[in-house]
Amino acid sequence: MNNNSHPIGVFDSGVGGLTVAKELRKLLNQEKIIYFGDTARVPYGNKSRETIIKFALESVLFLLKQNVKLVLIACNTSSSIALPVIRQYFRIPIIGVVNPAVRESVYATRNRRIGVIGTRATISSKIYEQEIRRLDSTIKVFAQSCPLFVPLVEEGWWDGEVVEGIVRSYLLPLKENKIDTLILACTHYPLLKKVIGKVMGENVVLIDSAREAAIEVKKILGEENLLCLEKRRGEKLVCFVTDKSESFKKIGEKFLGDKIKEIYEIKE
Amino acid sequence: MNNNSHPIGVFDSGVGGLTVAKELRKLLNQEKIIYFGDTARVPYGNKSRETIIKFALESVLFLLKQNVKLVLIACNTSSSIALPVIRQYFRIPIIGVVNPAVRESVYATRNRRIGVIGTRATISSKIYEQEIRRLDSTIKVFAQSCPLFVPLVEEGWWDGEVVEGIVRSYLLPLKENKIDTLILACTHYPLLKKVIGKVMGENVVLIDSAREAAIEVKKILGEENLLCLEKRRGEKLVCFVTDKSESFKKIGEKFLGDKIKEIYEIKE
Repeated sequence: MNNNSHPIGVFDSGVGGLTVAKELRKLLNQEKIIYFGDTARVPYGNKSRETIIKFALESVLFLLKQNVKLVLIACNTSSSIALPVIRQYFRIPIIGVVNPAVRESVYATRNRRIGVIGTRATISSKIYEQEIRRLDSTIKVFAQSCPLFVPLVEEGWWDGEVVEGIVRSYLLPLKENKIDTLILACTHYPLLKKVIGKVMGENVVLIDSAREAAIEVKKILGEENLLCLEKRRGEKLVCFVTDKSESFKKIGEKFLGDKIKEIYEIKE
Repeated sequence: MNNNSHPIGVFDSGVGGLTVAKELRKLLNQEKIIYFGDTARVPYGNKSRETIIKFALESVLFLLKQNVKLVLIACNTSSSIALPVIRQYFRIPIIGVVNPAVRESVYATRNRRIGVIGTRATISSKIYEQEIRRLDSTIKVFAQSCPLFVPLVEEGWWDGEVVEGIVRSYLLPLKENKIDTLILACTHYPLLKKVIGKVMGENVVLIDSAREAAIEVKKILGEENLLCLEKRRGEKLVCFVTDKSESFKKIGEKFLGDKIKEIYEIKE
């Protein structure tokens, strides 16, 4: 059976993964994308390990029913906590956003001091430290959870004095630790890149996990002979959500940088 | 059948309703309380009407299985959207946090200009305007959603310069509209009372919906002959949550102002 023309499945706790879908579309314009956003239960970031794993399993099963050829877990929380457990269950490749960003950060750092920012669950999992040290045990990792960044981004507050104050409160300890590379380990954070860059200074390299994950997907599809061979362009993106609200479309289109034409609600 | 010794059920989307449980315990120290927090799906504030109603129904059914004699919907979002629909389905009294606060605000205002702040879903429902005008159609209501307040409170940021900046951004329009009474239409907001008071000035009366709801529960239990008649004191509070995380206990105890001894996780 030839799966090349099957869609890529992207799963996130909510709307954030559309920043990853945006990067996928840039690199893999001929691929159809099925996006699943668990908007009825978003956010995952403060929830427990067991719950996050259960939700990830349900989401992957949903995407499998849509005949996807690969699943990209766009949610950092879920990639950190659920992916190591559930990866082994399925035959198709399941890719997270952690390892691509880790590899890029290890490549980028000069002084061997890397910062990681993410949700509380992502940071508590210590997966970034663990994966970075596996590649280079001499690197020092400084991690900081920033639970207000997701609501800030979803509220559309992406710059300005108040936002800078919040960003500074969280990032000051990382700055004092003289990191030269910072992993934005949450799909929402690229929207705060400007302010984060300003606060950290221009000598700190910001690693955008969305972009790195898209590069990884292209690589894996190539290796597994799963790239779409038809000469399609601008293939469609179909979104499924567990709660259909006005804000998904509104914020989602900002994240995707394009109109979202098809959004369907599914019941848990 | 005599139900007087049965517990009171309190339901909230998460941990916030424990501010209401705190007020209940002050007024009704002899009553046992069963608290249900839907922490796996929190927050409700940005979700759709249909989803909020579905979640409320599931929660009330859970509390009925615990033999509660009354349900207090401590969540403003759910009180605004689900209560008018689901109230009619059940035989026991179901009370929300909207009407008690509305009555108190109408009583408190002198210049007939009332402000309401809450989550996006609460404010979009327009229930506060509607209920205030039903009591006095000459009153002008100014409503403002403040989606960042809940994450701020849950992050433990209750005062300081950054918090003041955020509070000022949201409340300035209400101040310019010269309201003299402000309803804090979300369980989390009482924790920001100090900063909100500072920003609004001392001439604006803040209405705390948690306190008003507890007074209403006492009144209804009295009218329905459901008050506990045993001379118990310091009766217990039992919490059920859909996701058991460390933060529920940690933040919950701050909200309740007391230790939480029993927390059980239930599966949806």
